[in-house]
Amino acid sequence: MFITGIGRTKFGNLDKSLPELAYEAIVNAIHDSEQNIKDIDAIYVSNFLCGPLNGQLHLNSVISSLIPDLNIPILRIETACASSSVAFNQAINCGKFSNIMIVGVEKMTGPLLTSPIDAISMAGDREFDHREGLIFPASYAIIAQQYMGKYDIDHSVLEDVSYLNHKNSRLNPFAHFFHKEVSRELIKKSPMIADPLNLFDCSPLSDGSVAIVLSRESHSDRDIRILASQMSTDSISLTNRKNLTSFRSTKIASKNAYNEAKIKPSDVDILEVHDCFTISELIALEDLGICGTGKACELIKSGAIEIDGSIPVNTDGGLKANGHPIGATGLAQIYEIVTQLRLEAGKRQVDSPKIGMAQNIGGVGGTCGITILGV
Amino acid sequence: MFITGIGRTKFGNLDKSLPELAYEAIVNAIHDSEQNIKDIDAIYVSNFLCGPLNGQLHLNSVISSLIPDLNIPILRIETACASSSVAFNQAINCGKFSNIMIVGVEKMTGPLLTSPIDAISMAGDREFDHREGLIFPASYAIIAQQYMGKYDIDHSVLEDVSYLNHKNSRLNPFAHFFHKEVSRELIKKSPMIADPLNLFDCSPLSDGSVAIVLSRESHSDRDIRILASQMSTDSISLTNRKNLTSFRSTKIASKNAYNEAKIKPSDVDILEVHDCFTISELIALEDLGICGTGKACELIKSGAIEIDGSIPVNTDGGLKANGHPIGATGLAQIYEIVTQLRLEAGKRQVDSPKIGMAQNIGGVGGTCGITILGV
Repeated sequence: MFITGIGRTKFGNLDKSLPELAYEAIVNAIHDSEQNIKDIDAIYVSNFLCGPLNGQLHLNSVISSLIPDLNIPILRIETACASSSVAFNQAINCGKFSNIMIVGVEKMTGPLLTSPIDAISMAGDREFDHREGLIFPASYAIIAQQYMGKYDIDHSVLEDVSYLNHKNSRLNPFAHFFHKEVSRELIKKSPMIADPLNLFDCSPLSDGSVAIVLSRESHSDRDIRILASQMSTDSISLTNRKNLTSFRSTKIASKNAYNEAKIKPSDVDILEVHDCFTISELIALEDLGICGTGKACELIKSGAIEIDGSIPVNTDGGLKANGHPIGATGLAQIYEIVTQLRLEAGKRQVDSPKIGMAQNIGGVGGTCGITILGV
Repeated sequence: MFITGIGRTKFGNLDKSLPELAYEAIVNAIHDSEQNIKDIDAIYVSNFLCGPLNGQLHLNSVISSLIPDLNIPILRIETACASSSVAFNQAINCGKFSNIMIVGVEKMTGPLLTSPIDAISMAGDREFDHREGLIFPASYAIIAQQYMGKYDIDHSVLEDVSYLNHKNSRLNPFAHFFHKEVSRELIKKSPMIADPLNLFDCSPLSDGSVAIVLSRESHSDRDIRILASQMSTDSISLTNRKNLTSFRSTKIASKNAYNEAKIKPSDVDILEVHDCFTISELIALEDLGICGTGKACELIKSGAIEIDGSIPVNTDGGLKANGHPIGATGLAQIYEIVTQLRLEAGKRQVDSPKIGMAQNIGGVGGTCGITILGV
């Protein structure tokens, strides 16, 4: 299976509706694939909050309206922040179709029905965690506290993660914070959100869309091979977890993905991880086996994850600075890996990468999708 | 592919939470399949309104919490009222797994975040139709007006549909209105909702859950063969439709399903159709080719769709009287077809049916899922 086309919008606070965003990404992906929309056999739509925020469910039928007289199977998948990697995984697992499009889209700013904070919290456990005040910044703050205590590290490594992601986003014209210079001083001085996480530890509210075209056969030397696609799930409530500084869903899905791709962690040349909060980037590096448990701080401080390092991470700016339009985020990671493997990443191009991996999680690891791509 | 297990809850106004409802259906389906939950390779969760009504998205992770240490792929599909037939279709199309569970669940009564009327309207087009007041009762009222004018029929055939569905539900102990005697007089006198549709033309708000186990291999003579599963989509706004008295998505999906099953409409012995409003039962009978265009009234008046008729329809009571817990409705139709084909339908058993079909739609035909089962 191959990725034969990719398309995206800019991420950020955009004056475009949900269908307009999706349409722009679809047109760009079709154009990039050099195919016709009539060649597409099925469309998988990924979105998290179209109901609570935009008052518009049944998004598959909205997408159908954009492409008159197509009448192919179109469906929507929602698995919180992991919606689009799961949609990608489903599209691959569905052996019935030859050419499939996956469209991730989210509209999180502008006139909304609910506060985005209330809406995003719906990815967490309403029955137990919410009663204790455990909405996401609080949950990840507890995880950060435990991690920092266990491995005796201070906040500076989280600042490094934020700084590097913002630095990379300055090389990505599509990124939410492409135009924003972010200094270490600004990061350090930013207001506290949930101790120890401050504003620059948190990913932003972004609008945006990404579309990907998959084909069973390769048509061009720009096509990228899918080496593995896996997903796993875990309990939704933090109260059910034995260990808060590691996500079992990432461990299981990545182990299965390494087996499927027949590679080991050290074979990965470029990596996109789900840094919804900076602490989750450290946990991802460990759960994926890129470094040993408790060794992420050391890896980050060594410079290895920078664009010219041994294992560049989030070269597009990550969720922190590329942006986090939730239903499109997993596809944005895949978009970046494809761009890098095609050697089309311009100023942020990594030196001839052969294998790239993306890790996309939902909630606090209740869902994880892992994708491995290669040339 | 075979259906090897079915489980459901009663439908109605139930004092049970979303996870409790799903758990009950899952346990019942696993018990019926004589397998162990550990034999399940993946779970497809179908739900429409968990975000707007229950403030709980990421339902796949909630379901994961119910089954500790399973960590298999679990995902949620939402395509409005067609969510569960589309989840069923996806599960079948996913060649990767041997034993798959599909769980449809909806919680529509009790303490809710939003009015169910507002939430359900999210299956319709927010951008154009809602501005004109076209929420679902209004949309289906316009469709009914057009249909009744075009074929010169009066409201009495809609009363027949309502009456027959309620009559059948009195033979189905799981049905929302099992305990309610509904006379023709009551139907005729019920308050107007949207002219010409009165209260008894509209399906109710129901809580409920249904789970189905699919297996690649048959293990028992109670297993039911899947002859076809198809879906199609159409535009969301009524303003884009050329014909309001027929749904293109039903026509395309059923044509593909008949081809896949290698049968013709007259081979179908029992039928479940999506009677969200009584008028949609007439349209379904025509779009599925059970009768000619404009001939549904004649068919219904002939008695053919009654339990002892030539093509019994909605033997469980249909959406009108079995109930309409939206994310579970398509699976409830499949549950009834399986029960009938197994000859386990008790007092409402049809005389030795061999082939059954279910038609499940989303919105006003923006999505359609068709399933054909056989012994």
